[in-house]
Amino acid sequence: MKRFDLSLYLVLDPALCRPLGMVETARLAVAGGVTMVQLRDKGASPAQMIETGRALKAALADSGVSLIVNDDVEAAVAIGADGLHVGQDDMEVQTARQLIGPDMILGLSVETEALAARVDPAMVDYVGAGPVFTTATKPGHKPPIGMDGLARLIAATSLPAVAIGGLKVEHVATSLAAGAAGLAVVSAICGQPDPRTAALKLSQAIRKARS
Amino acid sequence: MKRFDLSLYLVLDPALCRPLGMVETARLAVAGGVTMVQLRDKGASPAQMIETGRALKAALADSGVSLIVNDDVEAAVAIGADGLHVGQDDMEVQTARQLIGPDMILGLSVETEALAARVDPAMVDYVGAGPVFTTATKPGHKPPIGMDGLARLIAATSLPAVAIGGLKVEHVATSLAAGAAGLAVVSAICGQPDPRTAALKLSQAIRKARS
Repeated sequence: MKRFDLSLYLVLDPALCRPLGMVETARLAVAGGVTMVQLRDKGASPAQMIETGRALKAALADSGVSLIVNDDVEAAVAIGADGLHVGQDDMEVQTARQLIGPDMILGLSVETEALAARVDPAMVDYVGAGPVFTTATKPGHKPPIGMDGLARLIAATSLPAVAIGGLKVEHVATSLAAGAAGLAVVSAICGQPDPRTAALKLSQAIRKARS
Repeated sequence: MKRFDLSLYLVLDPALCRPLGMVETARLAVAGGVTMVQLRDKGASPAQMIETGRALKAALADSGVSLIVNDDVEAAVAIGADGLHVGQDDMEVQTARQLIGPDMILGLSVETEALAARVDPAMVDYVGAGPVFTTATKPGHKPPIGMDGLARLIAATSLPAVAIGGLKVEHVATSLAAGAAGLAVVSAICGQPDPRTAALKLSQAIRKARS
């Protein structure tokens, strides 16, 4: 049984994290209640990905927070990450699962109800559902689906879903009400003056919405 | 026990193979006696690698010839190739082995005696040893080691070695005498007017040198 907690899922962005760096941002965010961390750096070389990932792994050790690597399966395995996240334009999930083996977490981005319905729960452990709102963080993203679209998308799969795309603290209650197991954020934490406090406000809102 | 035959190892080059294409070149070369085929296409997209690789796999089906993919582990696994070949500048062999699992063939390029001595036979199945001579096929290659260098390099490892780098039919006997299990060629087959005949001459020379 794989253990991971999608409640507050930080996707690191190297540009937005520049003030403190990705590792320090992640460390502070975890202190504020982040439950999963994804390293996403499409511009990094394999060697840079591995170096940053190893530093992140060391920073997260003993925190119980899962480290997920976006798209780069070589880096995910070299780092000893807890999981891999792939998009629809990245490798096929069958290939990803074969490469990482049965024990690593595999996440898949889905942007439509039809894609969500097609995800194989034997291959994939969770879906990233969105973008809920339009966001500047991921240029060229798919059309936003809104909260109603999020609810429909999540209903189309048996897998736990983390909502993503322009989400802020005021969207916590509606995202969870739409069936999300948690919220993935980038700019709501990365580049905030105090990532710990930013994460804390989000995690408190999540706790409150669930109570 | 993995079975592969390094005797005559064709490394496909997309530019040199343009007249007939990589798949048809490989098919003809196998008819002429090639025993292993490597798909090497540093400029291809992942999707192109997978498409070409699947076509190659279909063309080689039932031939007993192993299909090896250069560097691209996602493609190697997606294709269902027999093996992966990595260079010193590619991923670490531990990572490669972890990604492809225990059953796929793993080859590693070594350019010096010191590198050859350091190869872990628990991780790697064969080494590519060279470049023996200077070659235009691989721009920016390491300094050529010559036949004496080849013999020293091969002596430094317990693994089977395939010699590579500017090898032609007149180098078959000396390469095998240096301890090579076989010869890897690119331009001696790719782009030759008749790849089947070119392969046949090489395979006959190998058979003769061994008798």
